[in-house]
Amino acid sequence: MKLLEDAIIKRGKILEGNVLKVDGFINHLIDVSLICKLGKEFHRLFKDSGITKILTIEASGIGIACITAQYFNVPVLFAKKSKSSNISNDVYTTQVASFTHKTVNNVVVSKEYLSSGDRILIIDDFLAEGNALIGLIDLAKQAGAEVVGCGIVIEKAFQPGGDKVRSMGYRVESLARIANMQDGKITMCD
Amino acid sequence: MKLLEDAIIKRGKILEGNVLKVDGFINHLIDVSLICKLGKEFHRLFKDSGITKILTIEASGIGIACITAQYFNVPVLFAKKSKSSNISNDVYTTQVASFTHKTVNNVVVSKEYLSSGDRILIIDDFLAEGNALIGLIDLAKQAGAEVVGCGIVIEKAFQPGGDKVRSMGYRVESLARIANMQDGKITMCD
Repeated sequence: MKLLEDAIIKRGKILEGNVLKVDGFINHLIDVSLICKLGKEFHRLFKDSGITKILTIEASGIGIACITAQYFNVPVLFAKKSKSSNISNDVYTTQVASFTHKTVNNVVVSKEYLSSGDRILIIDDFLAEGNALIGLIDLAKQAGAEVVGCGIVIEKAFQPGGDKVRSMGYRVESLARIANMQDGKITMCD
Repeated sequence: MKLLEDAIIKRGKILEGNVLKVDGFINHLIDVSLICKLGKEFHRLFKDSGITKILTIEASGIGIACITAQYFNVPVLFAKKSKSSNISNDVYTTQVASFTHKTVNNVVVSKEYLSSGDRILIIDDFLAEGNALIGLIDLAKQAGAEVVGCGIVIEKAFQPGGDKVRSMGYRVESLARIANMQDGKITMCD
């Protein structure tokens, strides 16, 4: 998606360790008018897939998921990174390692909000190693729900996550795919 | 707001320690079509206030803030709960105690995204003790930004936060105000 690619090239910054900083428009300050356009694009791509629920993970996926969900007229379920006192014990749990933060989190959703009748679209801001996405797929599988697609804002195509999840048989649509970030320059896939 | 009050009475659950569980439609599973109506109501209330930015706190404020922001055509800035004690010089920091989780978090925003020209609407899902709201006001003040209002989904009016923030001179609009939650029954303010 040209508009997004231009924004990444113009406004993204490369930090040490191949971290792409897009916190000026995606995951700290959120350019909601841009996110609305991304949400409409996800809807165009998945509108015929019979989506019943959007699944994402806190925190930076939530805004994109909610904006996208309004075009599908479905609710959003966001997975939480630790069991908090106001979630019941009745949760599905998976473990997700964070590439950026070098941590491993327990990630949970309440069993009552995910079920075998659900057709799930997973939405997230980044796909790199694929850990968050594979964790969310695992949560959906535990519930017997069907993951019908994954909508990603930015895929780092030089990291293995995208290939891994596609080879598992899932449809992954990334609105921008980065080929490399060498010498301080961001290059998109063709 | 009648629609929201009805949803809280019908779908909310009271947990031990005066915790109101609304994770079936507000802060775990998110009823986005309901949130859109709340966002439109916040816009009706604050549309003449010259808002330039919506400020919220991760995680459960983000969805409501993003949905609301599209009606104002402004960006959202969400404050991050930082676990690390070594905060960089590039952020404004405040401390927020959580009523639900019994923890104290450092809460930060990048200095570059909040400035003295900003007219801030703070959006959050809950107002009880007022700690998160007062923390967000503190962050805005550090930046020299003006807080022109606070839009809250659910105020527990039997806890002191709302009165505290109003007595500081801020306009606080809560879409549902709970008078008490005694004997397992939720009663709204008149």
